[in-house]
Parts: sequence; structure tokens; C-alpha cells
Amino acid sequence: MLSYINGKYLPKEEITISPDDRGFLFADGLYEVIRSYDGRLFQFQEHMARLNYGARQLRFNVTEFDSLLDVAENLIDQNGLKEGDALIYIQVTRGVAPRLHKFPPAETPLTVYATPRPFTPRRDELENGIGVLFVPDVRWARCDIKQVGLLPNVLAHQRAVESGAAEAVFVRDGAITEGTHSNVFAVISGQVITPPRTNYILGGITRRVVLRLCKELNFPFAERALFEHEARRADELFIAGTTVEITPVVKVDDQEVGSGRPGILTRRLQEAFEKFKGKQR
Amino acid sequence: MLSYINGKYLPKEEITISPDDRGFLFADGLYEVIRSYDGRLFQFQEHMARLNYGARQLRFNVTEFDSLLDVAENLIDQNGLKEGDALIYIQVTRGVAPRLHKFPPAETPLTVYATPRPFTPRRDELENGIGVLFVPDVRWARCDIKQVGLLPNVLAHQRAVESGAAEAVFVRDGAITEGTHSNVFAVISGQVITPPRTNYILGGITRRVVLRLCKELNFPFAERALFEHEARRADELFIAGTTVEITPVVKVDDQEVGSGRPGILTRRLQEAFEKFKGKQR
Repeated sequence: MLSYINGKYLPKEEITISPDDRGFLFADGLYEVIRSYDGRLFQFQEHMARLNYGARQLRFNVTEFDSLLDVAENLIDQNGLKEGDALIYIQVTRGVAPRLHKFPPAETPLTVYATPRPFTPRRDELENGIGVLFVPDVRWARCDIKQVGLLPNVLAHQRAVESGAAEAVFVRDGAITEGTHSNVFAVISGQVITPPRTNYILGGITRRVVLRLCKELNFPFAERALFEHEARRADELFIAGTTVEITPVVKVDDQEVGSGRPGILTRRLQEAFEKFKGKQR
Repeated sequence: MLSYINGKYLPKEEITISPDDRGFLFADGLYEVIRSYDGRLFQFQEHMARLNYGARQLRFNVTEFDSLLDVAENLIDQNGLKEGDALIYIQVTRGVAPRLHKFPPAETPLTVYATPRPFTPRRDELENGIGVLFVPDVRWARCDIKQVGLLPNVLAHQRAVESGAAEAVFVRDGAITEGTHSNVFAVISGQVITPPRTNYILGGITRRVVLRLCKELNFPFAERALFEHEARRADELFIAGTTVEITPVVKVDDQEVGSGRPGILTRRLQEAFEKFKGKQR
């Protein structure tokens, strides 16, 4: 697969990272995963806005990555990914420098890496829903930054997989925050509820689309604290994200959600999402 | 500098990491920094015990790294580091695999990397003490695992450096946890106090040596919660770690500690540490 590193296009197998890369040594880096549908990049500007935000938060010496659009389009084109679904993974780190915690000299070039892969949606999960495992949220307090230090997510997701669930959902101090790679929504008494954007959750791109669709569909919705005990007894539950789109949740731990089948509002949001992505770049 | 990667010795410039290394993608890795004095590795077994602990916590497929002693000794020998001080950096990651949060197949080899460098102790800081900056501890809840996701440490240390301090000290919920690369000790009314080992701090190797020296010197000591307001008014303050050894802290933010000079017990512990390291491997 042709990929991109620091201004060059190379087969992925030929791309190497320095052991002094601050991404490798310190997780001093950001990432994005962007979906493409038949070659059309979904919500690309929003992904770049989030990357730019992260770069400002981490005080990178470059904080504007909108020009990666050309890179992403090239990777789609040159790898024959104009039909079907694909994912573009982008990672930007604070570059290569001798190992010291403090920032390297200001002129140190960032490492900019991008690689695409074809992606097969999990039709079964979209159709029948998934089980999730609730786990304690032991992550740091800046989950609004999409940084590569994902070890807590790795450990939580592994636990979920081993318990037969498809995703782990973090609970902090009794309230739902988000999944390891998704945002969480509940439907309670006809209202769609999702935790508000704080430093404890990522501002998900698909999350925003879902809220927009709620508005268009005239679904009552609220961004408010969603407590664990509420989520466990919700009428419907779903997760939203770039890879999972809108995936119904039909089981929490060993307990069925609502009827144990994907809910009605979840279905209508899935349908609206299908239409939305057909219209959007 | 001759370094080590996955069973081979190579000049560091020739060592490369795959962009699919889970250290680069997820901070799914552990590290150790080991001091050598005139070629003698300091507390090597203790460093490996901690690395083994981390590997068990992360459920790596190898959880015993004591054989890295040969590697470390080779790196010292072959790089002419038998005189003076040096640091050996060791990093172990969950290996190279397509990017998925869940663990890769069990047979995936870990990435094992080690690189040495000569080290010049900061005599001025050991002699005259340093300033530290107190910062909120926003890290995750498993700081007992020495993992490479050090972005919060990077950001905190950078803030310290920019404020003219030499180290940042984390405060969680009103209590001191530790520095970005050191443990923290206070002397209050003749007693040496350091926060207890919990999931919120790293079990420092030098920390343990300090407690042992307190015992030998008949200094009263306690592992107990050290509150921020106490630390600010302590008679003495110092940090301990592999690179800083025992370094007096004479300033917190803009405020002098005690007399504004390194304290008496701190000095006596420094002297005892000098003797201790002369005797130990």
C-alpha cells in the first residue's frame, strides 16, 4: 500500500520510524482516522480541524494540517481505493530528537505519516447490534486531545473482546464518558442523550453528525451527564464513530438493553446517516 | 553509539522502527532508564523486576527480561562507557501488527530496544538544589506502570522549564504524587516523608534506596499522604531518581523551601547515597 511520510510517497514496507521519534518514546503525537466512501473522504475538514486543535493544545510548531487533503486524495487514488470503503490513518508527532522530556528545538520538523487501507464495514454489527463491556475510565484528564497514548484504550478493548463484547465503554465516577474508539448515546423516554463535550471525552466527528441528524429528524436530544445506572436501563443504546458509524448496542455486560434488539430511534438515525453520507463529501 | 534491537547490535543510526510498531501507534510499551557508574550498572535487578512487573500488568507474551543484563553490559563495554557515568535506555513494546486496539496474535514478537549514552551529572543542581513547579496531576490512574505514554509528563516538564524550574511535581486532589521523572520527599519536623506506593506513583528504584538509607541512618521516616500545603512549608524538600539521584529542592514555584538552601538531612542522604553507590553493583 503506497503511504506517505514527511513529504514522500513510499510503499508502506519501506517506511521506517526513528527510535528517537517522540511518537515512539513519549506518545508525543496526534492521530486521525478518516473514512472514505467510494473515494469520497467523509468530513475531512472536521478531522483536520480536530488535528489542528490537538496541535495547538500540544503546542506543535505546525498547527495547520488542512493541506493533508492532497495527501489523502493521492493515497486514495494511487492505491485504487475509489470503490468501496477505506480508512486513512494519519499520525503527526513532535519529530525526532534526543530523548529529553522537554520540547526539542523549535525548528525540529514534525513527523507526518499517513497510510490507507480498504475497510469492510461490519454489516452484522450494524444490523444486529453489539455487546459492550462497561469498564472504569482510568485514562488521563485530557481525552479531548486525540493523542496516540492509547494504552488504556488497548487494555479496555482487549478486556471487552475477551468477554465476548465488541467495545468497551468507559465509566468515570459513575457517569459514562465514551467508548475506546466511539462516543456513546442512550435513548431514554424518547430522548437521545449523550455526555457533553468536556475534557473527558473526544469531540467525535460522527457524534456531531448524529446530533445534527437528531435536529433534522426532530428527535428530542440532550448533551448531559449520562449515569451508568441510566445507561444500563436505557430503552436504546448505540455507539457512534468513524469505523462503527452508528452501531446499536443490545447488551451491556451480560444484560440486554431494552428489548435486546436494535431500537427504533437508533434505526432511524442509521437510515438518516446512510442518506447523509451519500450527500456529503 | 552501538545499540540493540531484537537480538542484534547495530549503530543507532541504522536502527529503525516499523510505523506499525505498537509503541509508535498506541504507546503500548514499557521502558527503563538504568544508570551506570564507571561501567557498574546500578540496581539492575530492581529495574528488571519493575520491567517484568509492567510486562505482567500489560500481559505481554514475555514477562521476564533479566537476560537483558548481558545486553546492557555489552553496550557499556562496546561503547567505551566503562569510565564515567552512562544511562542505558531500554524500551519493550508489544511488537509490530496491523493497527487494531486489541492485542495482536499471541506469537507476535515484542520489540526490544536498548541504547546507551554517556551522562554528565548536574553537579550544580546536586550542590545548590533546584526549583520545581507544582502542576495538576492529569495523568492516568496506573502510574505504577512505567509505560511510554509520557505526554502528560512532557507537557508538565516543558511548563516547568519555561518557568525556570528544573522539574514539575504533580499534585492530585491536593496531595503530592511524584515528579515527571522523580519521586518526591519532604522533611517535616525531622521526619522524612514520601507518598506511599499506590497506583498513582511509580515505585522508584532510587526512592527505595532513600528509604533504606533513612533506616540505616536512623532518620525517622514515613510513607504517607504528603499534602501540597505541607510540601510548600516543609523544612526540606528533595527529589530522587535515576538521573537526578538525590537532588535538593530549594524553591517551589516562586517560594523558597525552608532556608532556601539544601537541608541538612538532604545533605546527609546525599552523602550516604554516594557511599551506597560506591559499594553496589
